[in-house]
Amino acid sequence: MKILLIAISALFLSACGGDGNNSTTTQKDDTIYTLKLAETWPSNFPIFGDSTKEFARLAKEMSNGRLNIQIDSKNKHKAPLGIFDMVKAGQYDLGHSASYYWKGKDPNTLYFTTMPFGMTASEQHAWFEYGGGQELMDEVYAKHGLRSIIGGNTGNQMGGWFQKEINSIKDLQGLKMRIPGFAGDVMARVGAKPTNIPAGELYTALERGTIDALEWVGPSLDLRMGFHKIAPYYYTGWHEPATELQFLINLKKFDTLPKDLQNILISAMKLAAYDMYVHSEYASAQNWANMKKEYPNIQVKTFPNSVFNALRKANDELLEERAQANPVASRIIQSQKDYLEKARAWTQISDQSYLNSQSK
Amino acid sequence: MKILLIAISALFLSACGGDGNNSTTTQKDDTIYTLKLAETWPSNFPIFGDSTKEFARLAKEMSNGRLNIQIDSKNKHKAPLGIFDMVKAGQYDLGHSASYYWKGKDPNTLYFTTMPFGMTASEQHAWFEYGGGQELMDEVYAKHGLRSIIGGNTGNQMGGWFQKEINSIKDLQGLKMRIPGFAGDVMARVGAKPTNIPAGELYTALERGTIDALEWVGPSLDLRMGFHKIAPYYYTGWHEPATELQFLINLKKFDTLPKDLQNILISAMKLAAYDMYVHSEYASAQNWANMKKEYPNIQVKTFPNSVFNALRKANDELLEERAQANPVASRIIQSQKDYLEKARAWTQISDQSYLNSQSK
Repeated sequence: MKILLIAISALFLSACGGDGNNSTTTQKDDTIYTLKLAETWPSNFPIFGDSTKEFARLAKEMSNGRLNIQIDSKNKHKAPLGIFDMVKAGQYDLGHSASYYWKGKDPNTLYFTTMPFGMTASEQHAWFEYGGGQELMDEVYAKHGLRSIIGGNTGNQMGGWFQKEINSIKDLQGLKMRIPGFAGDVMARVGAKPTNIPAGELYTALERGTIDALEWVGPSLDLRMGFHKIAPYYYTGWHEPATELQFLINLKKFDTLPKDLQNILISAMKLAAYDMYVHSEYASAQNWANMKKEYPNIQVKTFPNSVFNALRKANDELLEERAQANPVASRIIQSQKDYLEKARAWTQISDQSYLNSQSK
Repeated sequence: MKILLIAISALFLSACGGDGNNSTTTQKDDTIYTLKLAETWPSNFPIFGDSTKEFARLAKEMSNGRLNIQIDSKNKHKAPLGIFDMVKAGQYDLGHSASYYWKGKDPNTLYFTTMPFGMTASEQHAWFEYGGGQELMDEVYAKHGLRSIIGGNTGNQMGGWFQKEINSIKDLQGLKMRIPGFAGDVMARVGAKPTNIPAGELYTALERGTIDALEWVGPSLDLRMGFHKIAPYYYTGWHEPATELQFLINLKKFDTLPKDLQNILISAMKLAAYDMYVHSEYASAQNWANMKKEYPNIQVKTFPNSVFNALRKANDELLEERAQANPVASRIIQSQKDYLEKARAWTQISDQSYLNSQSK
């Protein structure tokens, strides 16, 4: 019986690839791992929702079906801003959302989406991958038993749709604007009245004058909202120069996966993230061309320097307060500032100089 | 004995995952596939060479060792500009090079790296993935039994190091400059004398006046060449706004791989490519900061509009000639032109406007 067992054993190792020579691998685990992902977005939300589908497809195809990602949209789980808690608690294994939504739960999650007057998409991707950004994000999320990976960039977001021109800082004072998050805090400090209004009510609020202005994303997602039909001015961006979504991972669950599936999971997330960025750029290019054709009277405007100076001053003060209050925040803010200084000097003599020389 | 065999058999299927229920997959192939990759670059060439190592690492880790990529640098295969032929002939399974090197073998390979006055990196990535670029590249390469996948972007290349200022088109006439490829053809048409000189001799050639100017890459790779020590003017770019390297695949070999490994291979290439772009941007940011500190007298210059207008006219004429001569070229040139028009209109109101508003 002993001999027979050895024979079975040898057969096993040879068929399953455990013989250690260089023609087969040591892979044995063909279990299917089903991972549940909760996303902040409604079902079939364009671009953002496409990126989770792309992630699931990549994970499945690269793992030969061993990774099975089940995506629940907000229509299913009913908690678009509960992703952090649900993945932390293990109710879901994965999430797709945006880090800055969690600043009420951990103030240091704020910095990993985009910051007013901050990095562009390529600058920020370089900061995440080579400038220490991922390590800082890991430090912040590990405390919660989570890991956050880049989840797709919207590109530079437009400053928003305005009913009136902004010619000086006085024009922002008292202005009722839908502009959430840290950028809303910056606007409040210069005297604007940031308000939050559910997406479905924005069009009516802008049309009826409940608000004077709003920011949403950019042509990639603004076109379907129809704001260009009811507001004449489309302002260029300053408040979200490179909005990066996030994949969230429950680390305890992650640790149960075989090493190769862990690698596939992370790579599929990053590739889906980069893909969402170029998808956003493509969709904005197409939609902006369509909007200009159909509504040639849309006026693109940029705030005057005096307004930017006031907003930048408010932004710097708010960041300084956060850095004073929290040593981890201080290190993140300093890391971003140091990298942005170098990166922008390079961007100025490369893409910016090129673009300016071609548009004269 | 029969019962025992059935028992062994059942044990087998359960451990190797062939039982067809939904807790295991049908994966059975644990063969290790060794693929040989030839790259144009010398051993340990920074950034470009890092991206093939990153590709090999990703492929190995995601496949649990079933994909084994062996990289030969030009020091080994001695044919840096023979990659296309070697992969086509099956002497190598994969290559890492740049598509525009093969314009002598197939004139339509020219368009898949970068074009003078063309798209920036994010614009071009969007064209490849969503604007029909990959499909056109597939069409061109399939004829040779090859597939080409994005292989990493250098970012916007600098216009080069010049001994004298360029104030008018007259200053380019007779100028001896190392500027290869299609951009060299454009320079020749306005009266410059493009020359090609091996990399190892460039420094001496510029120092001794054998050439008056040269373009290489940008701070990411120029710093180690030392040109900033011997030429006072660093011109901004126009000729290679988004140089994308390529992975080459022998299709016959590719078809022998299991489907999951095909997917891992392509994903590892694309992820390594996006990673090389952000790596390049990071290295340029760091190196430019170092160069400015150590050599504060470097003068960054941009050609005047009159020079750009003459170069753009020459560029348009050359493209028109190529489009007339070749129907596939005509379609590629038109696709790039149409997409660039839309993409640039968007870039102007997003990143360009943002960067300009922040650098006033």
